[in-house]
Amino acid sequence: MSQTKYSIGVDFGTESGRAVLVKVEDGKEVASSVYEYKDGVIDEFLPDTGIRLESDWALQNPADYIQTLEKTIPALLKKSGVNARDIIGIGIDFTSCTMMPTDKRGTPLCLIDKYRNNPHSWVKIWKHHAAQPEADKINEVARKRSEKFLARYGGKYSSEWFFSKSLQILNEAPSIYQAADRLIEGADWIVLQLIGEERRNSCTAGYKALWDFDEGFPSPHFFRALDPRLENIVKEKMSQDIYPLGKKAGGLTAEMARLVGLLTGTPVAIGNVDAHVSVPAATIVSPGKMLMVMGTSICHVMVDRELHIVPGVCGIVKEGILPGYYGYEAGQSGVGDIFAWFVQNCVPGKYWKEAASKRVDIHRLLEEKASTLRPGESGLLALDWWNGNRSVLVDVDLSGLLLGCTLETRPEDVYRTLIEATAFGTYKIINTFEENGVRIEELYACGGLPEKNKLLMQIYADITGREIKIAASSQAPALGSAMFGAVAAGRKKGGYDSIVEAARKMAHLKRESFRPDEENHSVYQGVYAEYEKLHDYFGRGINDVMKQLKSMKMTIRGK
Amino acid sequence: MSQTKYSIGVDFGTESGRAVLVKVEDGKEVASSVYEYKDGVIDEFLPDTGIRLESDWALQNPADYIQTLEKTIPALLKKSGVNARDIIGIGIDFTSCTMMPTDKRGTPLCLIDKYRNNPHSWVKIWKHHAAQPEADKINEVARKRSEKFLARYGGKYSSEWFFSKSLQILNEAPSIYQAADRLIEGADWIVLQLIGEERRNSCTAGYKALWDFDEGFPSPHFFRALDPRLENIVKEKMSQDIYPLGKKAGGLTAEMARLVGLLTGTPVAIGNVDAHVSVPAATIVSPGKMLMVMGTSICHVMVDRELHIVPGVCGIVKEGILPGYYGYEAGQSGVGDIFAWFVQNCVPGKYWKEAASKRVDIHRLLEEKASTLRPGESGLLALDWWNGNRSVLVDVDLSGLLLGCTLETRPEDVYRTLIEATAFGTYKIINTFEENGVRIEELYACGGLPEKNKLLMQIYADITGREIKIAASSQAPALGSAMFGAVAAGRKKGGYDSIVEAARKMAHLKRESFRPDEENHSVYQGVYAEYEKLHDYFGRGINDVMKQLKSMKMTIRGK
Repeated sequence: MSQTKYSIGVDFGTESGRAVLVKVEDGKEVASSVYEYKDGVIDEFLPDTGIRLESDWALQNPADYIQTLEKTIPALLKKSGVNARDIIGIGIDFTSCTMMPTDKRGTPLCLIDKYRNNPHSWVKIWKHHAAQPEADKINEVARKRSEKFLARYGGKYSSEWFFSKSLQILNEAPSIYQAADRLIEGADWIVLQLIGEERRNSCTAGYKALWDFDEGFPSPHFFRALDPRLENIVKEKMSQDIYPLGKKAGGLTAEMARLVGLLTGTPVAIGNVDAHVSVPAATIVSPGKMLMVMGTSICHVMVDRELHIVPGVCGIVKEGILPGYYGYEAGQSGVGDIFAWFVQNCVPGKYWKEAASKRVDIHRLLEEKASTLRPGESGLLALDWWNGNRSVLVDVDLSGLLLGCTLETRPEDVYRTLIEATAFGTYKIINTFEENGVRIEELYACGGLPEKNKLLMQIYADITGREIKIAASSQAPALGSAMFGAVAAGRKKGGYDSIVEAARKMAHLKRESFRPDEENHSVYQGVYAEYEKLHDYFGRGINDVMKQLKSMKMTIRGK
Repeated sequence: MSQTKYSIGVDFGTESGRAVLVKVEDGKEVASSVYEYKDGVIDEFLPDTGIRLESDWALQNPADYIQTLEKTIPALLKKSGVNARDIIGIGIDFTSCTMMPTDKRGTPLCLIDKYRNNPHSWVKIWKHHAAQPEADKINEVARKRSEKFLARYGGKYSSEWFFSKSLQILNEAPSIYQAADRLIEGADWIVLQLIGEERRNSCTAGYKALWDFDEGFPSPHFFRALDPRLENIVKEKMSQDIYPLGKKAGGLTAEMARLVGLLTGTPVAIGNVDAHVSVPAATIVSPGKMLMVMGTSICHVMVDRELHIVPGVCGIVKEGILPGYYGYEAGQSGVGDIFAWFVQNCVPGKYWKEAASKRVDIHRLLEEKASTLRPGESGLLALDWWNGNRSVLVDVDLSGLLLGCTLETRPEDVYRTLIEATAFGTYKIINTFEENGVRIEELYACGGLPEKNKLLMQIYADITGREIKIAASSQAPALGSAMFGAVAAGRKKGGYDSIVEAARKMAHLKRESFRPDEENHSVYQGVYAEYEKLHDYFGRGINDVMKQLKSMKMTIRGK
């Protein structure tokens, strides 16, 4: 009985799937393995066809998800030398809303020859942005019918979410919609593959599919008002059985056990979402602490005992993150992506040469140069909407702005300004939460950015005026999933009976944190006042130039 | 008598002086010669001293002007084989306001040992920007006294101009001010060197030194209100005798004739300014035709029969460009400079590699890529204020803005947008002229940009909705000066009796012009409406964020 026990967490990301094997007693990572999706993000051509996708599309191939399991789990066992019988549970998390149509048996339609050439048969991932007209329709109908649910989504349902994408399939490919026996989230689809049963999770149901713990899904009347063909979508193509996080979904099927080299019946946790599963992995099990999952974008997630209606949040879901709490989610749709864009498109050759001669990464070189600037010194200000604004404006048609350029403006000035702009975006979210009754005392961070860019973290601390603590694990989602795996196993099998218990043992913080410099904070308050003015002027419809330009662009490209 | 006659034009620029020898009968360029100023633009240290200049200073060494004459004119004779006796006249033009203090004999104080180490003894060139406090004072006093002249300068006297610079000398180096028997424009100083007499020209007097054909200079009361020591500046250090353009200033002195290899007594024209002298060189001798002198910046110059007060112009001067007309000048302080900034700071290494492998200039590569875009397709919009705004806002504290950025934005999108932004800036100037009664039917262009960038010219035609004709000469200022040289000689000596006559014979256009595409113009009207909104919002004080950021930057840099 004193044999060390392990659990596995698998995190299905945007470009790759990543698995970790951790000790249940302390969360220590024993092995990890990554599988880069063969087809990656599909946004130009459908694989192996000349079929061109429209702009704003983003798909994945579900075969890559199975490959992730098949490649990474055996690799964990091999690397660690751990015996399969000491693996007490598995948890998984997924990007979301990442959804697909499947047949009765759960086979994705894109893996069936006769549907394969229709882009709508593929997995639409979170950053598929082509369902805006459908989101507009959902919002219009919901407002007209005064649907109560809208307030829980900050007043706006997103084009990225489940019913926008479902309605787009219906509108543009009714035959695919009809052929789909199920419309299902990636997280739930993977659990279905693992245990052979559909067990929809409360997190994606709540955050993406309008489900509420107390009210359930919207009524068929609402869906009929959207489109008569949609009236029974929940009954016909989804499931009303929603399973809370922290429960066991089932046991590994014999077939899947063979594929991945684990024991049949190994407990599998209810599926989860990458950002939300990271909350306990960052040690957070109580209110007042906002986690920033920082990578290409930022998800802001936290819990509170009460329901506060916060305008412009992504979602407020009872039981959506931790049992017994309301889970709050907000976000910024472009952060690391903006820096990557900048590096790819705006950094001159001489900087690349300098980085090469110093043998440092280009981001690192820019960070070095930008760190010699003091707050306010660049004379620049940006609005961080290169990928639209998720919170608190909830508007994908907004775009990026850079202001204050002179003939002396250097790449490092712009780089720092872009970092500052994303920090102002986070500060705006924090302030909106607090203005509406959700207290935020500390910030926590996980994801790729805190590891890579100390300047960025310090700027976030200085701008928000709050200490930022960093999750010890560089794979917070996978660790969180492994924690839920240990909870699925339960104490009797060497795991834990609750995620709070698991967090106390398995989750840790780095010793180093980022504390705000008061003088910097005060200078940044001045810049933030200007940011807010521009934020409201361009973001709240006083000047809709960004939308005008986008609509002009779309019209001309469509010609 | 049928012997071919020639004239010489010398254009004193920012980095070099350039002379051309042209046939009087048809303006054909027979030879040209350039002298790069040895000391160039002096903006860091005074030559041969360790004396550091403050920021925003820009000086020249007048010895470089004499060197220009001494090197280039003999070179013209040598290259062309033309005999000095067939050179019937010389004209010169200069950047402006480029001014210096001299002693009684016209020797610049910086060439006298005891003054040499004082930066104020040197030539302050047009882009010396350190006299802003003095310009502010002039504007304040003029407004308080309701001086009529202010309206002729768009409501604001510039820090670049004659009295701002003079007052700076008085404020910062009273001993130099006192030692100066003359404060004189470069154009007039060169004429003084050539003919041994001071003959101040109406162009620089009018555009830079507040002189008016009907009213003369401002009264001593005005100058006393500025500073009691300035009361008699005009009488003491300048001259009230202002000579109109198109007149002969005098004949070459024996000494100068020896130096340059021409005949003593060769007629020399009244001095002129580079942009203004280009008007007849681009065939323009009547109203309705605006010339754009396009290079690092753009000067917009034209004539009209009437005086119309146009807010935000640089100057309106009777007899300032062509005899019998009011001359109008406006400008954009950053154009080619912005593209150069972009290429240096924002174009990634892979584009440089592609340009190298295609063996094309990087601007050419960007032009190629940008030319595949249709108007409105980039989804971007910029305000072209990287170097402030000269017209019609007259505000050096404004800065550049780029709006509409997405993760798909490419360097060529931004490059094209910057071109469009400068074209919108020109369009704004054109519209402001027309709204205030100055009709503009056609555009003409000369300078470096029209030669280099056809895409840019087409975009200007499309945005302004006007045909753009291009001066045949790539050295329009020098040709214009040679034309005035031929007029100084007069018909009896084989030249012409008026600049209109000279223009008909000597000035030519390229066969190729740029005609607006109606469809493009219509799309651009939509974008321009958005440009105007931003222009007024940020430029007219509704949101003064640009000034706030600049002031923050200056404060922090000053710490």
